[in-house]
Amino acid sequence: MSKKGIKIVTIGGGSSYTPELVEGFIKRFAELPISELWLVDIEAGKEKLEIVGAMAKRMVAAAGVDCKVYLTIDREEALKDADFVTTQFRVGRLPARILDEKIPLSHGMIGQETNGAGGMFKALRTVPVILAIVEDMKRLCPDAWLINFTNPAGMITQAVLTYGNWKKVIGLCNVPIGAMKMDAKALGTPEDQLRFQFAGINHLHWHTIKDNKGKDRTQEAINNMFAMAGTESGIANLKELRFLPEQVKDLGMIPCGYHRYYYMTEQMLALEIEEAKTVGTRGEVVQKLEDSLFELYKDPNLSHKPEELSKRGGTHYSDAACEVINSIYNNKGTTMVVSTENKGCIDDVPYNSAVEVSAIIDAAGAHPINFGSFPASERGLLQVMKAMEELTIEAGATGNYGKALQAFTMNPLVVSGDIAQTLLDEMLIAHAAYLPQFADKIAMLKNK
Amino acid sequence: MSKKGIKIVTIGGGSSYTPELVEGFIKRFAELPISELWLVDIEAGKEKLEIVGAMAKRMVAAAGVDCKVYLTIDREEALKDADFVTTQFRVGRLPARILDEKIPLSHGMIGQETNGAGGMFKALRTVPVILAIVEDMKRLCPDAWLINFTNPAGMITQAVLTYGNWKKVIGLCNVPIGAMKMDAKALGTPEDQLRFQFAGINHLHWHTIKDNKGKDRTQEAINNMFAMAGTESGIANLKELRFLPEQVKDLGMIPCGYHRYYYMTEQMLALEIEEAKTVGTRGEVVQKLEDSLFELYKDPNLSHKPEELSKRGGTHYSDAACEVINSIYNNKGTTMVVSTENKGCIDDVPYNSAVEVSAIIDAAGAHPINFGSFPASERGLLQVMKAMEELTIEAGATGNYGKALQAFTMNPLVVSGDIAQTLLDEMLIAHAAYLPQFADKIAMLKNK
Amino acid sequence: MSKKGIKIVTIGGGSSYTPELVEGFIKRFAELPISELWLVDIEAGKEKLEIVGAMAKRMVAAAGVDCKVYLTIDREEALKDADFVTTQFRVGRLPARILDEKIPLSHGMIGQETNGAGGMFKALRTVPVILAIVEDMKRLCPDAWLINFTNPAGMITQAVLTYGNWKKVIGLCNVPIGAMKMDAKALGTPEDQLRFQFAGINHLHWHTIKDNKGKDRTQEAINNMFAMAGTESGIANLKELRFLPEQVKDLGMIPCGYHRYYYMTEQMLALEIEEAKTVGTRGEVVQKLEDSLFELYKDPNLSHKPEELSKRGGTHYSDAACEVINSIYNNKGTTMVVSTENKGCIDDVPYNSAVEVSAIIDAAGAHPINFGSFPASERGLLQVMKAMEELTIEAGATGNYGKALQAFTMNPLVVSGDIAQTLLDEMLIAHAAYLPQFADKIAMLKNK
Amino acid sequence: MSKKGIKIVTIGGGSSYTPELVEGFIKRFAELPISELWLVDIEAGKEKLEIVGAMAKRMVAAAGVDCKVYLTIDREEALKDADFVTTQFRVGRLPARILDEKIPLSHGMIGQETNGAGGMFKALRTVPVILAIVEDMKRLCPDAWLINFTNPAGMITQAVLTYGNWKKVIGLCNVPIGAMKMDAKALGTPEDQLRFQFAGINHLHWHTIKDNKGKDRTQEAINNMFAMAGTESGIANLKELRFLPEQVKDLGMIPCGYHRYYYMTEQMLALEIEEAKTVGTRGEVVQKLEDSLFELYKDPNLSHKPEELSKRGGTHYSDAACEVINSIYNNKGTTMVVSTENKGCIDDVPYNSAVEVSAIIDAAGAHPINFGSFPASERGLLQVMKAMEELTIEAGATGNYGKALQAFTMNPLVVSGDIAQTLLDEMLIAHAAYLPQFADKIAMLKNK
Repeated sequence: MSKKGIKIVTIGGGSSYTPELVEGFIKRFAELPISELWLVDIEAGKEKLEIVGAMAKRMVAAAGVDCKVYLTIDREEALKDADFVTTQFRVGRLPARILDEKIPLSHGMIGQETNGAGGMFKALRTVPVILAIVEDMKRLCPDAWLINFTNPAGMITQAVLTYGNWKKVIGLCNVPIGAMKMDAKALGTPEDQLRFQFAGINHLHWHTIKDNKGKDRTQEAINNMFAMAGTESGIANLKELRFLPEQVKDLGMIPCGYHRYYYMTEQMLALEIEEAKTVGTRGEVVQKLEDSLFELYKDPNLSHKPEELSKRGGTHYSDAACEVINSIYNNKGTTMVVSTENKGCIDDVPYNSAVEVSAIIDAAGAHPINFGSFPASERGLLQVMKAMEELTIEAGATGNYGKALQAFTMNPLVVSGDIAQTLLDEMLIAHAAYLPQFADKIAMLKNK
Repeated sequence: MSKKGIKIVTIGGGSSYTPELVEGFIKRFAELPISELWLVDIEAGKEKLEIVGAMAKRMVAAAGVDCKVYLTIDREEALKDADFVTTQFRVGRLPARILDEKIPLSHGMIGQETNGAGGMFKALRTVPVILAIVEDMKRLCPDAWLINFTNPAGMITQAVLTYGNWKKVIGLCNVPIGAMKMDAKALGTPEDQLRFQFAGINHLHWHTIKDNKGKDRTQEAINNMFAMAGTESGIANLKELRFLPEQVKDLGMIPCGYHRYYYMTEQMLALEIEEAKTVGTRGEVVQKLEDSLFELYKDPNLSHKPEELSKRGGTHYSDAACEVINSIYNNKGTTMVVSTENKGCIDDVPYNSAVEVSAIIDAAGAHPINFGSFPASERGLLQVMKAMEELTIEAGATGNYGKALQAFTMNPLVVSGDIAQTLLDEMLIAHAAYLPQFADKIAMLKNK
Repeated sequence: MSKKGIKIVTIGGGSSYTPELVEGFIKRFAELPISELWLVDIEAGKEKLEIVGAMAKRMVAAAGVDCKVYLTIDREEALKDADFVTTQFRVGRLPARILDEKIPLSHGMIGQETNGAGGMFKALRTVPVILAIVEDMKRLCPDAWLINFTNPAGMITQAVLTYGNWKKVIGLCNVPIGAMKMDAKALGTPEDQLRFQFAGINHLHWHTIKDNKGKDRTQEAINNMFAMAGTESGIANLKELRFLPEQVKDLGMIPCGYHRYYYMTEQMLALEIEEAKTVGTRGEVVQKLEDSLFELYKDPNLSHKPEELSKRGGTHYSDAACEVINSIYNNKGTTMVVSTENKGCIDDVPYNSAVEVSAIIDAAGAHPINFGSFPASERGLLQVMKAMEELTIEAGATGNYGKALQAFTMNPLVVSGDIAQTLLDEMLIAHAAYLPQFADKIAMLKNK
Repeated sequence: MSKKGIKIVTIGGGSSYTPELVEGFIKRFAELPISELWLVDIEAGKEKLEIVGAMAKRMVAAAGVDCKVYLTIDREEALKDADFVTTQFRVGRLPARILDEKIPLSHGMIGQETNGAGGMFKALRTVPVILAIVEDMKRLCPDAWLINFTNPAGMITQAVLTYGNWKKVIGLCNVPIGAMKMDAKALGTPEDQLRFQFAGINHLHWHTIKDNKGKDRTQEAINNMFAMAGTESGIANLKELRFLPEQVKDLGMIPCGYHRYYYMTEQMLALEIEEAKTVGTRGEVVQKLEDSLFELYKDPNLSHKPEELSKRGGTHYSDAACEVINSIYNNKGTTMVVSTENKGCIDDVPYNSAVEVSAIIDAAGAHPINFGSFPASERGLLQVMKAMEELTIEAGATGNYGKALQAFTMNPLVVSGDIAQTLLDEMLIAHAAYLPQFADKIAMLKNK
């Protein structure tokens, strides 16, 4: 680390999340003395960058911490000698997300930004950009850590590992954090008296819970969650519980919320169609939230994270990012759930692929707690999704249309056949501006 | 082998296929001297057994071979000192098959006797019966070979290996035989000048083709099949070609016909719905064919396999069975595609599971040609289907409802969610008579 | 845990180590309130048990802690409702160890109590006893943890896992503790500012060192240890450094002290021969130390661990045991190096075998930090030794002479051929009293 | 293949074996029409090349086959458009072999040309040469097959696969051929009525035997071989049987002759020492045989392989080479035991390493019969030797001294410690002329 203090670079710095990240850094300043925070965005995001950047500067000033905030659209200038690079950008911004949601839905398939065809297209757009960032880092800050929370976080982490050949990367997601809070509530036991073991891949992991007597409480948590569902004292977000009891009770592990897409496809699709017709897709809802957030951020008197940001979703994300950086910088040995290289931690997926697992985080990075093998009920779904990820990443890195079509065919949330190809082609054309690797194919499709 | 000649027992001997099997044995009598052929069926199949058994006796007599044909519904009497036991029974007969087709279709899902919910229910009904047969064999003919062509052949073979703990089993399917014939035609090269390597599981395998110069002809065969499709000189059964060119061209291997269910789900479902509305499901069509076949078999002057049997489907099945028996008996070392224990032949699925691969067949059984690892585009689908098979077999052997529901959830041809559970429950009730292992659960479902 | 406090049972309680263990418990009494400590030994060890037991009682009394010490030769009485069982017994006591040293040496081979033929015979004698203890535990204290520090600790742990089918077992060794202290000294960095990752099997593991900046310091430690060797300010026990620099420098990991038997066989054998001729084998030296220790223990005024015990060797062993128990009881999540079930933590050895690795210890037991695959330079030796262990354990559990001979043949420290068989037979006869499983074979050998 | 007939290039063509190879080609000329046979050697071998080349020309002429024999020391000229390249060269010729035997023996270790330190040095000398040949082949005959029978055949094959990145290679050895003949004799059953399955690595494989009834005859063969040993009607080469009965009887597989080095090290070393003192090392014996063979070859009237050649050892080698070429050229599908890429055929060694296994040989190369996993008694030795091979090959390809020292340390036939390093250094200096990759290290050693 540079003696002068820590230099952090946040790519996608114009995001509405940035105040949360800044708050997280301010909160930890005593142990994590950041001297420079560089918020980087692209030309198209300049206005938002300036709004949120000004807000960040006010927050830092109000907190009285000795940290300088820089705003730039020159990524190379920012990366020079960085200690940590966080990535939270969205290629194509919310309009692209809304396409990822609406186009699949228009064909009667799950439309979602990290699952199904939508998540795959988010990966196809993001992979070339993250690989370009990694190339810059090799030149400009070869010792830096890359902390990625751009979705789909697992695929992006694997792209960095495999195609970027960059090992100092950790992928983050807020789903495990939320799950642990819900488990603690269901068990009526403080979270810090429980031990969780997570294993799987991003947005498709399972976990077990043990208490401070070593007793397995997983089944009890499942039972309680089902019992509480729908009661007044029950968990607010009933959707989180939308599983079939017999489906879950025999797993021996707790699935994550995103499993609903795979375990309850019928209901999730119906829900999405309903929402799209009424309140709008999630992207549309978020668009409005963002607009009002940016209105708030413009207030020159606002110097703390506004309450409204918590509705944005993605809570805990920035906090997780700050905590990972803190654990690395201070060699803390914290246990966190992160996306990292497998290396046999889970025997059922390739050695060099990215997995999302409980890991010790210290100055040398993430050290996964060994997991072993899954039983068949978890294994098959995990393996097909990992193969789908590999194909998507390869398509994203190389522009290979055949691999993209195979990835679509393999994804359980895409109905295979002519409809899959139609959907693929339609999405390629719709996202053409962000898919330079498919330029030739898209030109051919347009000329058909 | 007994000195007096070979004793063969065919369970499900009242099947309309039996004349093909008998023909196969007669054809090979010089090298495969069968002294006793026992056709076994159940009480409910007695009438058909007598018709087809009389026909078999006429065939043997007409051929002038010294083989005695026995008809019985006493399985234990038949199995005593058998050398080979072939299994071709259908638990619940065609009416059960028709339910396997119609119930899923009524929920808008693939209805098919070996894939999707239908195939899974066929396994649930068959597993207890095959395990009971194996227990009889342990007592009555512990040195016999079990040659299974009851579908789903892969799952039944694995049930015998894992839950029956019986290693002398070989599973058979006619799909590879048909594929090789089609490839030879597509390449304009005699089949015996080509070398095929198959790997996967029953009804979900891929293969490569090399010629007698060692040249890989796989891609050429794929290209030719697409080029020929729809032309007058092209392949009759156009459905066999119903794949997306880009989907297949990038695989490097040729998928089997059943891949259409997974690669072209939309079209296959539409086709099934159309057929059900018009000509009837495949089971209904076959029921009519069978009825007329049995009418023919009743003719006391008929002593050879009638031409009409070839329309029944399943051509080559009986021939494959005869050839496997012949290869074992005469230690021939023939290369055939069979279901057998994996033992690392395919690295991507569990060591002790059943796989369908090219193997050398000799007196010691099946010796698979090593395959290795699949690329991601094949691997993911293979792994999810193998996990689905494991869960189905476990449910079939134990009556565990949770495992059955997980198997339904995992199968890409079953839409997950409430609809999957509704379908499962409806099928359990419909097939109650053949699912003793689920008796308690079914009683509960009926009382709801 | 029982409400009345913790019940600990120490099998081999008459050992000279016991005072260290008692001291460890007293030191931790505030957080680890042991209400009952049962020291168990066999009839032949009764006198020593009484001496050391009286000493233990005096220590407890002097410390003023509310813990009752029980002495018994009735193992079943002791095990009833135990919370933790520690095992530190030596079947055949020091005379058997001296035979394990001298007989191999008399054939010109390494004679040592945990490596080579000696260690294998220690396993053959111990396996039946530990399995009998496990059977008692199943009946009498099915929820207890077994903390084993009887050598060879890895093989005993694996025997408990595999043949005892008992999963609540942790094996302990003091070698990693000593290694970490030496590394810290070599690096001039406090031990608590270093992070160690150990992987391998008991007495054959390698480790890496990282500092609190995440920097790999392994190579620097190796270089410093070689540089310091032989200098006045250098490390006292020069033998610890007896490796070839080029041998170690290219490993990328630090071998453990016992690697000298495999990496420097020539020198280790010469050293043993020299010692046997002069000061006596290690067992003979220890016998003398033990005799004088027991003289000290007899002193009715002695109520604290005497300084002389530290010369006995095995320092840190008891402390490690206390710390493991403490971490389990208080769910501490301490990182320790223990023998536990592999489950894919190290990809190069079987899934269910015991490995010695860095692990988090909490109320649910040991959770290994994932390791992955070793490079060839470590892998081959690890694999051959693990296979040797499997064969030895099988021979110990079943009395299979062929497996014992294969284990001898495979061990790199046993010269293979007639001499191996001669050695095996001679040791079987010499240890006959403790090898009931080989009784028939030994009778045959005696009658030859 | 070129239309004009087959072009075969034999590197090391001046070998005394060449007449056997020529005889093998002549015998098969009807099905294997070789139009050009190029015998290549180096400048130093020119005289022998001319003698044996003249002999080869006389043999071809006498047989009346239309094949032209070319003699050259210009490897590139020879390789141009070759169809098959066979390699049978010996870097450093017999004097180097004699050093490989004598230097280890002088330190009291096994001195042998394919095992222990000698075999490792043969690999170190050969790896750079074979890699240079592969580079030539890439330019001059990119479609040719490389049939290697230069020892150590397994390591050379793996070097070609891994460091040469050349997949069209098959390694050959005559040991399996001899073993099958001996087994047939021991069982009193014609070899062609037995089925052998071999698995392992070159000079370290095990096999099972089944007869044409599928019955396992392995144990019977072992028993018979022990019973026959020493009787007049017994097997001539008693040394082949020098195993401990209990060692072998419990393996369930038959070890190869070279296992005696690992299973009976004491006796093999004693035998070598005795031979070196009396008749000379094997290399010295062969030197004399070769001298007299070349005297015979000089006879302008000799036009057939002389009887004396059979004493040379290595019988069947050339025949195996001819048969592999024949099977490839004619797509025969013969089952042979060859060194080829593992790809999971044996689960216990790395996926891409070379193994020696039963395989189908056809126009596309070698297709191993799947083997699976070894039990512990075979596994450990196989794994340590494979790791030793990897280290040796890496040292041979890169000149890394540390890897060479680790390989020495790991080899069970090298006593580890200072003596291993002394031996390594002495051999490096002795073979300096053939170890360009170690030039710097050797210079340093000489200057010490």
